[in-house]
Amino acid sequence: MKIDGRQTRSIWVEQDGASVGVIDQTVLPHRFATLRLASLDDAVRAIKTMQTRGAPLIGAVAAYGLWLALGADASDENLERAYAALLATRPTAINLKWALDEVMAAVRNRPRGERVAAAFRRAGEICDEDVAINQAIGRNGLRLIEEIAARKKGERVNVLTHCNAGWLATVDWGTATAPIYMAHDNGIPIHVFADETRPRNQGASLTAWELGRHGVAHTVIPDNMGGHLMQHGLVDIVFVGTDRVTAQGDVCNKIGTYLKALAARDNNVPFYVALPSPTIDFMVNDGVAEIPIEERAPDEVTLMTGKTKDGRIEAVQIVPDGSNAANYGFDVTPARLVTGLITERGVIEASRAALAKAFPERIERGAKSKVQA
Amino acid sequence: MKIDGRQTRSIWVEQDGASVGVIDQTVLPHRFATLRLASLDDAVRAIKTMQTRGAPLIGAVAAYGLWLALGADASDENLERAYAALLATRPTAINLKWALDEVMAAVRNRPRGERVAAAFRRAGEICDEDVAINQAIGRNGLRLIEEIAARKKGERVNVLTHCNAGWLATVDWGTATAPIYMAHDNGIPIHVFADETRPRNQGASLTAWELGRHGVAHTVIPDNMGGHLMQHGLVDIVFVGTDRVTAQGDVCNKIGTYLKALAARDNNVPFYVALPSPTIDFMVNDGVAEIPIEERAPDEVTLMTGKTKDGRIEAVQIVPDGSNAANYGFDVTPARLVTGLITERGVIEASRAALAKAFPERIERGAKSKVQA
Repeated sequence: MKIDGRQTRSIWVEQDGASVGVIDQTVLPHRFATLRLASLDDAVRAIKTMQTRGAPLIGAVAAYGLWLALGADASDENLERAYAALLATRPTAINLKWALDEVMAAVRNRPRGERVAAAFRRAGEICDEDVAINQAIGRNGLRLIEEIAARKKGERVNVLTHCNAGWLATVDWGTATAPIYMAHDNGIPIHVFADETRPRNQGASLTAWELGRHGVAHTVIPDNMGGHLMQHGLVDIVFVGTDRVTAQGDVCNKIGTYLKALAARDNNVPFYVALPSPTIDFMVNDGVAEIPIEERAPDEVTLMTGKTKDGRIEAVQIVPDGSNAANYGFDVTPARLVTGLITERGVIEASRAALAKAFPERIERGAKSKVQA
Repeated sequence: MKIDGRQTRSIWVEQDGASVGVIDQTVLPHRFATLRLASLDDAVRAIKTMQTRGAPLIGAVAAYGLWLALGADASDENLERAYAALLATRPTAINLKWALDEVMAAVRNRPRGERVAAAFRRAGEICDEDVAINQAIGRNGLRLIEEIAARKKGERVNVLTHCNAGWLATVDWGTATAPIYMAHDNGIPIHVFADETRPRNQGASLTAWELGRHGVAHTVIPDNMGGHLMQHGLVDIVFVGTDRVTAQGDVCNKIGTYLKALAARDNNVPFYVALPSPTIDFMVNDGVAEIPIEERAPDEVTLMTGKTKDGRIEAVQIVPDGSNAANYGFDVTPARLVTGLITERGVIEASRAALAKAFPERIERGAKSKVQA
């Protein structure tokens, strides 16, 4: 999408042809800085520290991470080592494993001399596919916005979103934001309530930043506020992204998503989840019971980073000395609370039957890998 | 309650006999400072800036505020002016109006020469009554904790709370925290998940502080986390306070409370609201439609104050330049989501019938003032 008029993707191959560039998302919204990833270690570190984040983007970075690893050493041993190191960076998002498996399939059984080029090609395809998928998600979600806009007759459409499922979390367009950007670009008056999304504030720091840079009207709200807004008719629709959707349609996403789904249900506000199909994990059914939830360092809760009056970036402690904090990264919204899944193949019900019908080839592949395992 | 072993109330008459002292709650948890309120203006400012806050404590401060005003000028005109100024400080909590009306009733129709002493006496009674009420709430809520403790056979009891309904919000004991302190003092192993409570972080800065100083085990969690904890059986019971309960049992409390009530209902976790009876507003029925919700300055959302590494208190900006923020202070939890109300007269259903039965004299008084109006 655009940064103050300039078209930008969240990941690109650097001019040297031997490294990739990403936006350092840990210093947004106060600074715009980019990172050059020139080795497997660079890619692992960027994902682990969340300098680069967002389920689809992590997949893209991991794909290029395998390419970088093969560039240094194209042996089977190094390939396996790199695959394991990248897979271990983050436990919850399934796109990571999907992308690694895609590159693996592209390079395995090839002579060493061809592996680097094959990995590079597949990583690039993964990026382009992500953009195409998000555009399709955007077109499918746009219809939902258009319906509301028609009903509201020129009044602005209010969307609530949680965390950042924006273009920064993908290669371009975003998942939850793709319909929003398309509506805005088409002249529909649209306004986004961006949940702050504690503890890492991706809503306040990333979603607000990218919406602002592209020119979309938005208001940052504390995570506590969405229920009140819905009770008072101030939210027309909720769009969120996801890190993993199970075979039965349960949705794992940034911690706090479940609370917004409950509020949406209680107030008859439609609650949609936007996802590229690589986010579906057909091997998992019950999201609450089965998906591993990442626990991160307590200092993400106890410290808050921002910009001081004189422009310095500083972290301040916001809990008493001696108080502990817990930091679960994700929660699971049961399928029963989801109005629909916006996929590249259309808006479908969050159910086993609808997912299987929309992505039959994934079911077959899943069954095959179960037999092999 | 205790601050590192020393028994403390949140408000006291200073040794000069002409002013009251309160704890400055805007610099907690990083500094402990007290404020001397020597005039009506001091009291108004302390409430408005939230240096002193919490529905019951605001009532106590406002009662002493009338006393301070009368000390300067005991005329009817000044009494009315002071009443209006104090009433206008905060719009949502009903205890404020209740306490002002109590002092008004005590001084009105008295000769000017007796008014100061009468106001002082009634303000002191309001404080002592608040302590007695909270102790009764504590005893009633303690039984709920004891039942859980008996069932869990020595395993720790996990309570989730939102915002600060602790002793800092009252004169002593707190409302939601009174049962917790009593359980702790009685040797029941108890642990509190304290919601951070954005945007003002009263959970992270005040609840965590007072629990820690009294020695109660606790963990600060982002507001987003409670649903996940409940899904995984990590919360035995929820205790919150309230700023106003309607005649039909709707509960107005700090923004975000409603989301926790929804999660509690969805996971069969008991959700209790602790309240002194002055918090009940028998003149209001439908909380969502009728209670005025305070909107506060956006910079409470966009700026975050904390302690830097070198010990300075600093505010940092956490949203992009140019992004707006909304800041509603409270939301309303419909009575249907409330397991029970813990009052000084027992644990009762959140319903019109149960409230009327428990506080019949308030219904009569309400009917009388309706006729007079």
